[in-house]
Amino acid sequence: MRFSQTFIPTLREVPADAVIPSHRLMFRAGMLRKLANGLFAYLPLGLRSFRKVEQIIREEMDAIGGLEIKPTVIVPGDLWKESGRWDAMGESLLRVKNRLDADFVVSPTAEEVFTAIVRDEVSSYRQLPLTLYQINTKYRDEIRPRYGVMRGREFVMKDAYSYHPNEASLEETYQAMGQAYRRIFKRCGLSVLPVRADSGAMGGTGSEEFMVESDIGDNTLLFCKTCEYAANVEKASCQPDFTLPSAEAKKNIEKIDTPSVKTINELCAFLKTDAKNFIKTLIYKALNVELDLSETPGGEKLEKRKPRADAPEVYPEAFFAVAIRGDLDVNEVKLAAVLKASEVALAPDAEAERLTGAPLGFAGPVGLTKIPVIADTTVTAMQDAITGGLARDVHYTHVAYGRDFTSWRTADLRIVRAGDRCPQCGGELYEKKGNELGHIFKLGYKYTQGMQVRYLDENGKSQVPTMGCYGIGIDRTLASIIEEHHDDAGIIWPSSVAPYQVLIIPVKYEGEMQAAADKLTAELEHAGIEVLLDDRPERPGVKFKDGDLIGLPYRVVVGDKNLAGNCVEIKPRNAKENRLVSLHEAPQELITLIRKDLLN
Amino acid sequence: MRFSQTFIPTLREVPADAVIPSHRLMFRAGMLRKLANGLFAYLPLGLRSFRKVEQIIREEMDAIGGLEIKPTVIVPGDLWKESGRWDAMGESLLRVKNRLDADFVVSPTAEEVFTAIVRDEVSSYRQLPLTLYQINTKYRDEIRPRYGVMRGREFVMKDAYSYHPNEASLEETYQAMGQAYRRIFKRCGLSVLPVRADSGAMGGTGSEEFMVESDIGDNTLLFCKTCEYAANVEKASCQPDFTLPSAEAKKNIEKIDTPSVKTINELCAFLKTDAKNFIKTLIYKALNVELDLSETPGGEKLEKRKPRADAPEVYPEAFFAVAIRGDLDVNEVKLAAVLKASEVALAPDAEAERLTGAPLGFAGPVGLTKIPVIADTTVTAMQDAITGGLARDVHYTHVAYGRDFTSWRTADLRIVRAGDRCPQCGGELYEKKGNELGHIFKLGYKYTQGMQVRYLDENGKSQVPTMGCYGIGIDRTLASIIEEHHDDAGIIWPSSVAPYQVLIIPVKYEGEMQAAADKLTAELEHAGIEVLLDDRPERPGVKFKDGDLIGLPYRVVVGDKNLAGNCVEIKPRNAKENRLVSLHEAPQELITLIRKDLLN
Repeated sequence: MRFSQTFIPTLREVPADAVIPSHRLMFRAGMLRKLANGLFAYLPLGLRSFRKVEQIIREEMDAIGGLEIKPTVIVPGDLWKESGRWDAMGESLLRVKNRLDADFVVSPTAEEVFTAIVRDEVSSYRQLPLTLYQINTKYRDEIRPRYGVMRGREFVMKDAYSYHPNEASLEETYQAMGQAYRRIFKRCGLSVLPVRADSGAMGGTGSEEFMVESDIGDNTLLFCKTCEYAANVEKASCQPDFTLPSAEAKKNIEKIDTPSVKTINELCAFLKTDAKNFIKTLIYKALNVELDLSETPGGEKLEKRKPRADAPEVYPEAFFAVAIRGDLDVNEVKLAAVLKASEVALAPDAEAERLTGAPLGFAGPVGLTKIPVIADTTVTAMQDAITGGLARDVHYTHVAYGRDFTSWRTADLRIVRAGDRCPQCGGELYEKKGNELGHIFKLGYKYTQGMQVRYLDENGKSQVPTMGCYGIGIDRTLASIIEEHHDDAGIIWPSSVAPYQVLIIPVKYEGEMQAAADKLTAELEHAGIEVLLDDRPERPGVKFKDGDLIGLPYRVVVGDKNLAGNCVEIKPRNAKENRLVSLHEAPQELITLIRKDLLN
Repeated sequence: MRFSQTFIPTLREVPADAVIPSHRLMFRAGMLRKLANGLFAYLPLGLRSFRKVEQIIREEMDAIGGLEIKPTVIVPGDLWKESGRWDAMGESLLRVKNRLDADFVVSPTAEEVFTAIVRDEVSSYRQLPLTLYQINTKYRDEIRPRYGVMRGREFVMKDAYSYHPNEASLEETYQAMGQAYRRIFKRCGLSVLPVRADSGAMGGTGSEEFMVESDIGDNTLLFCKTCEYAANVEKASCQPDFTLPSAEAKKNIEKIDTPSVKTINELCAFLKTDAKNFIKTLIYKALNVELDLSETPGGEKLEKRKPRADAPEVYPEAFFAVAIRGDLDVNEVKLAAVLKASEVALAPDAEAERLTGAPLGFAGPVGLTKIPVIADTTVTAMQDAITGGLARDVHYTHVAYGRDFTSWRTADLRIVRAGDRCPQCGGELYEKKGNELGHIFKLGYKYTQGMQVRYLDENGKSQVPTMGCYGIGIDRTLASIIEEHHDDAGIIWPSSVAPYQVLIIPVKYEGEMQAAADKLTAELEHAGIEVLLDDRPERPGVKFKDGDLIGLPYRVVVGDKNLAGNCVEIKPRNAKENRLVSLHEAPQELITLIRKDLLN
């Protein structure tokens, strides 16, 4: 392709809102333009790399037996009502009404559509397992889209869904997907951090996220300094940093005056002790709680309801007290999982004061009767703790779990932090920020049960299949490749995803230099190498600058002086120095280099 | 690919709403499933052919210098407001509001987005001409989607847009597109009818539609029995079937009583004459009229307005009397074009009676002063006509155009019919129904002017580029291939777009038959041929039936008896008879046949 015949509007300036390298470089290299906040158009150069990422993913999906299909982007809202996500998804779901007032959704993901197809078409165990996927447009109405295509509103996702007669079959596909994902990211030149959601100590792995390290990552990840443990903070656990008491508590509970002392810090100062000796009590409000609350304090007054006729019964709203050691924080993802709630958040102050009968800062688990208490496991070890006294300016000391109060549930609810101990080996954990590029997940029966998928097993018995889902964001993968492969001058494309593999720069596109450049282009293209020939009447400096910016893997400079000796200069984008190669040998040398790159 | 490893849910039954062959066969062959009215999911077999059509189009676009880009599917409503189509497009435009209450559109076409990109990126004549295209999801909120993907709501379209410094450059790209379209449809095995919008006699061709003949076609097309003339009835013209009078009218106009005689038919009977002797006068209401009406009867009272601040000034509503010969009908597309109106329709009865001062059936051009009269060219020849008398039960006879009344405008407004005479050669015209697969169109300055695109020409002067647009519907093209290539048993794929090229059916997939079928599959796949191997434990009859239904171009049957003689049966899907070929020669023979097909 001749530079003059394509459309690569390179820029010297950086768009003001482009704060990360991939965003800046995709704009500057003429790969991408902004249409609106979170909406981008890929220009020819960008689309070439985009399609290569798609194709790598497609090949690896096909290699493990995935079958590509193409449902619509605009899908019936009814399917989302069936699955319950019409209600459960917040405002990030873009909803549309058509001219007949029917509800539609601009797909953010496609569990519903794929499961509906399988429900209609699969009737026998002989059709299982079945792995279907699409590479298609998605939309999420992000509140704050930013970082270019790293967090856009419209994007393209490869999403695969697999259906299985049993857990072993799901496990097999899940493992194959995990391997395929590793190959995909390797082929894209990406160093990914596979992060298991609930690994090691917990047994069974139900989900794995494929992260790339990034300063602007959405996710906090914990890694062990000693073993391979890696987890998203949302799900990370750690080894206990406490021992359960071997004997009874020694001192009796005692009420003390703590005038206007509300915060843990104030209390530490007042009582000259450490936050670890406190039990913090937080009042949470949870929405759409599926757990049975009929036997809990206050639970008898609550009523389960169906948000819609075909949805499961839930408590629309319920309140809980969460007790946790004073130096720790509550992981709300874990809390929501324990409660089977769609959402949890700290209760509004007024509600908290009504339920505890005490001003803020004086809540405590001792004598709390209006709502259930959920204790973090750390609390179960505490036999001489300080807690709020459920009245203004009052605290308790020498509080013992089990003796002075107990809890409705205990669970691991703490946010794990750098410095905590690895749940697998006890090593020290450290933190990194990461962006999620892919996710594989054993969904189980959530959708197949909810949407009433049935097949007949070997014995003619009606069964529900189990299900997995597996996504990769194409745009974000492409941006991450640039994040990992660039320098101050521009992008440094891996050959596998480069828009073209070779850039040929004649110092001037005329005379012998033109003839040699044209011949080299033709020979390389004949061998299936993708070449960009810079035939523009620009100064060499401009062409070199644009070349470094666009970042094709190999640059060939065809100049008068070297041509006199029948040579050209070859420079890999990631090398510092040119190398003189004879004009005659240059094509074969480049072909060999690129073929080798593509094998990696 | 093994049949057992893919997902081809063939059906014996026909969906009740599938009334055309392609719709029936795409469902029965397991290519497609319905998600909702007008929304379909392509299953693996369907998607393979779909991608081949896409790829053929992509290759031909690239071959004429088209550059593929990928804007979003969800686009900012503001761009549509700028172009004026936010107002002008009716309910078929699917509009969405996001969480921030901003307006978006699910793209039905993309003149706005492409022009916005060009406006931002093109600044110099050196960047022109520029042809950009996408192959991307589109949505039109059809009132009555039907015939499967032939008229769905969501579909995929290749849409290209070209920008030029002058008319000659546009003409060059327009011609290249026309040739590319012919190659595309030929490679897809389609017989298309290219229909010029305003060909021949009118000079200059500004648009060409690529139609396939179809009983359920949306379009009525007119063809000449003698020459190559072809036109959509919306734009068709014909040679005059009248001669302009050489002398003055002989008889004086006369008022006659026609008690309760309102329709042309009643008048013909009453006056014992032919409809050709009447001048029919119809009152039309036109919306958003751009034409200047200040000098027309009643026009001085009308006021031009901007529907929105950045839209051009129009008359929101205006009325006209259209006079046409009694045996003809008014082509409202032509009328709207003459008036530069967004829409025209017969005025409501009450309005018509108010403007003519006469009951329905008695309108006429003589003495009509409240609104402008537009005369079809046929009327200009009428020197002894009958017209309504602008009062109850009154008509005029011996009316002469030019003497008794005149018109504000004359124009060709008639609907051309089978039997009319070709505007090019005078031959007889006949009609066919057709479906539009593609359309190429010289847009001119409509969008570039409206959206203020500017570039600097060779002399540093600011100029507006001219523009063309070029679309092909992928889904409809695919369905049309099946419409043209099928028989009672199923589809008969052309090799170029077949999901696989060879179907191998071992009579039983075991023993020597299995070994021979596997070997043949491997040899063909090694040569790049796409093979579907029917390894299912089904009866041969079932496999043959499914094979005919799916319709791959070549079928190879591997049976015990023939294998004993070292032979297999080869049958092209469109041939009646099998042919015995030695097992040894079969691969090369198939490879040769298929390569030959693909060259066509």
